[in-house]
Amino acid sequence: MFKVDLNADVGESYGDFIVGEDDRLIPIITSANIACGLHAGDYKIMDHTVKLCKKYGVKIGAHIGFNDIFGFGRRSFPIDSNELEMLISYQLGALMGVCKINDAEINHVKLHGALYNIVANDLNLSRTLILTVRRFDASIKIYGLSRSETEKAAFLLDHPFYAEVFSDRAYQSDGQLVSRNKNNALINDAEIIVKRMIHLIKTGQISAENGDMITLKADTICIHGDQIGAAVKADKLKSALVESGIEVKSE
Amino acid sequence: MFKVDLNADVGESYGDFIVGEDDRLIPIITSANIACGLHAGDYKIMDHTVKLCKKYGVKIGAHIGFNDIFGFGRRSFPIDSNELEMLISYQLGALMGVCKINDAEINHVKLHGALYNIVANDLNLSRTLILTVRRFDASIKIYGLSRSETEKAAFLLDHPFYAEVFSDRAYQSDGQLVSRNKNNALINDAEIIVKRMIHLIKTGQISAENGDMITLKADTICIHGDQIGAAVKADKLKSALVESGIEVKSE
Amino acid sequence: MFKVDLNADVGESYGDFIVGEDDRLIPIITSANIACGLHAGDYKIMDHTVKLCKKYGVKIGAHIGFNDIFGFGRRSFPIDSNELEMLISYQLGALMGVCKINDAEINHVKLHGALYNIVANDLNLSRTLILTVRRFDASIKIYGLSRSETEKAAFLLDHPFYAEVFSDRAYQSDGQLVSRNKNNALINDAEIIVKRMIHLIKTGQISAENGDMITLKADTICIHGDQIGAAVKADKLKSALVESGIEVKSE
Amino acid sequence: MFKVDLNADVGESYGDFIVGEDDRLIPIITSANIACGLHAGDYKIMDHTVKLCKKYGVKIGAHIGFNDIFGFGRRSFPIDSNELEMLISYQLGALMGVCKINDAEINHVKLHGALYNIVANDLNLSRTLILTVRRFDASIKIYGLSRSETEKAAFLLDHPFYAEVFSDRAYQSDGQLVSRNKNNALINDAEIIVKRMIHLIKTGQISAENGDMITLKADTICIHGDQIGAAVKADKLKSALVESGIEVKSE
Repeated sequence: MFKVDLNADVGESYGDFIVGEDDRLIPIITSANIACGLHAGDYKIMDHTVKLCKKYGVKIGAHIGFNDIFGFGRRSFPIDSNELEMLISYQLGALMGVCKINDAEINHVKLHGALYNIVANDLNLSRTLILTVRRFDASIKIYGLSRSETEKAAFLLDHPFYAEVFSDRAYQSDGQLVSRNKNNALINDAEIIVKRMIHLIKTGQISAENGDMITLKADTICIHGDQIGAAVKADKLKSALVESGIEVKSE
Repeated sequence: MFKVDLNADVGESYGDFIVGEDDRLIPIITSANIACGLHAGDYKIMDHTVKLCKKYGVKIGAHIGFNDIFGFGRRSFPIDSNELEMLISYQLGALMGVCKINDAEINHVKLHGALYNIVANDLNLSRTLILTVRRFDASIKIYGLSRSETEKAAFLLDHPFYAEVFSDRAYQSDGQLVSRNKNNALINDAEIIVKRMIHLIKTGQISAENGDMITLKADTICIHGDQIGAAVKADKLKSALVESGIEVKSE
Repeated sequence: MFKVDLNADVGESYGDFIVGEDDRLIPIITSANIACGLHAGDYKIMDHTVKLCKKYGVKIGAHIGFNDIFGFGRRSFPIDSNELEMLISYQLGALMGVCKINDAEINHVKLHGALYNIVANDLNLSRTLILTVRRFDASIKIYGLSRSETEKAAFLLDHPFYAEVFSDRAYQSDGQLVSRNKNNALINDAEIIVKRMIHLIKTGQISAENGDMITLKADTICIHGDQIGAAVKADKLKSALVESGIEVKSE
Repeated sequence: MFKVDLNADVGESYGDFIVGEDDRLIPIITSANIACGLHAGDYKIMDHTVKLCKKYGVKIGAHIGFNDIFGFGRRSFPIDSNELEMLISYQLGALMGVCKINDAEINHVKLHGALYNIVANDLNLSRTLILTVRRFDASIKIYGLSRSETEKAAFLLDHPFYAEVFSDRAYQSDGQLVSRNKNNALINDAEIIVKRMIHLIKTGQISAENGDMITLKADTICIHGDQIGAAVKADKLKSALVESGIEVKSE
């Protein structure tokens, strides 16, 4: 009846710099966003991560960011459609190459960090994102922020889109995320997080910071993978969702 | 009747670090080996270089090297078949991605620098190179050192192979290149270079350092692109070949 | 009687990525701004460049930029006093280390690229620049944009300062550089450049884009080193200055 | 009466790639080897780490490695005295710069990873290490492998040297470390580790893999900082040493 996907950013190590606990997190999630070597990840990490995803039946996505190892893709740079197209084609191609030798398929694209936010707020760049991905394969889904310009562009272009919500973030009454600069941006109580997510998936509604109930599309919930204990938290959320009768899957 | 391909390593700039004179060299050559971002090149340079190749009808190849910007792919690292497969799949995939948005095709793969030499001397790694490329597309040619283990592996596996010769290098009587450590390794006289190449293409023979005439397969001549005046030199060699009745083309 | 310093950014190669023609430029200039490994340069290039400067009696300066090899230090990042202090201390320390084993001394600090511009427009960051350099050695000069906040801060703090002018750039009537976005930003005619510089050094005045003569402090002229023919151009400018009776030196 | 120093490699994060648990480890150790930006660390991490060391009264050392972020300084490259001198001068200078703005002093130099091992086995490179450090400050100690060529060079040159032992490694009867390739190279039992170290500090002797008791100089014990639980382990070792009457300090 009810169902939702759980996605996480994985494969974000680089050389001997280890990030996250992928080996424990990947068996729990249903969609993996794999870093493609420009903001994190490298050819070895990518190969290892693709193999893990295949082993556990997790959908593989390209997690595409700025070319910025030192800044981990979190710093903003000016970007136009042309450069976005190049960033996508290089990284999506690279992951496709790694998938090729592993007999794996790419299910989706999710932008990373600063690039995710810039494109979420820009209809034209969102259009470029979708049209570029389509040149590779029109069935590759876009995972993007719910209520964003990216969602709008996918709707206009009739492209498969997964609306993403953040379980630990507060929402404004207009459906936008409360800015991280504000005190109430983050929700820390694990029980409240679980309740909010179950309610959201079952009713399509979530309470905003001012108490209003707002409508929010939620096809996939983002799990933060780079915090200590991420796998344990993810496991608890998943169990609670399943116990409440929600199917956790990607399709 | 007679024909030969001229290839050069291009797209080896990185960010604002400019290497070579690609804009003048690419109109002259017939095959371009494009760096794929790990030893040189980046997503912007690659896109620019693919566009140049399309414009001038030059065949596009993936120039695959170690992950080593600081060392420009010239430093050796221990490598096994597994890691070679990953290096190839990442870089070949990335260039395929860039080609995709430019409606361009990949014609060949040529390894770079230290990786080229290691694989040229190792039948098992040469086999891995060919089998990995085949998983992408069995029609992608391998450009490799004439009289190398790579040539042998391509023969055994019946894979399309272009035997590469170096116009400015001396050869031993056993067909191997004279080591760069030796005084007579390099041939500097442009006229001699031209004569040697014309003779080689027309007769299949070249004079070794000891004066012996030896048989050498020569499907493609490597043009060094990173030296000042590279384009002028390449142009002279090409004109001389054409005037002597040799067709300069890749097919 | 009249005198001026000629400075250039040098040591901006990285590994095997060669930038500029330092071997020919350094014998001409009187002050060298040596990249310190974060936006360009590396420990080998720095050592080589320091040795060249010693050989030709050229003053050695630390050319300090953002940590951004891919962007060559030309991209802007948000920065506060704290981070500026760290960027300076790391890079100035590193060059001091290289100078130590070469029995060389650091004469000045000049910021690079985006960092140069940001600090030139910010009195507080300019103050941090000077105070940080002072903790190393109060006699190290600052080379900074003429009529900038950096010049103002050096005046307020009574710190040795060389006001820098750009020979090939047009100036507004308020003494600011005409923005590079404008058509008339660059002066290309070598003869005009020479005349303008001689006039400026001898009279302390330069004609602005609207024809007004404006007063401009000019202790040092910046020579662009990364263009082809940079050394030849620099040599011509120097000769013309000397012939007109201007002493070219740093003191 | 008895005393020993505890050292650990710290400041090995890079940008947002977090390595180790420095905030918990530094209060326990007595000497910190701080990465200098070439194999790990950056100007921000270095500044943060120097501040932590000052706060807890921990001696500051330059942890100097190859220029190899991707390989974390663990990969070997050919190196001669000349290049070693440059690597040291750049990195030692950079850390000195960071120390300068923090009113901190450098106590020692310890090489990192592959560079540590190469120099430990080479008397000539060990001599270069010591002579280069001396040009900065003759009182800066060298921390190096006990029974190595580095120890020998320090003795010959009469340079202050701390002989380093590894608490979790087995030793051969000739005083050399059992190679990591062997099954018995590592000692995992925490209790045995503690007993071995107490015995070593009090008697100057340790049991080799064949059961022989051998003499081994042990001025400082290396604590591995990049494993989960490193701080807890270090704390236990320190407490046991103190309880057995050994003073844990650096002087």
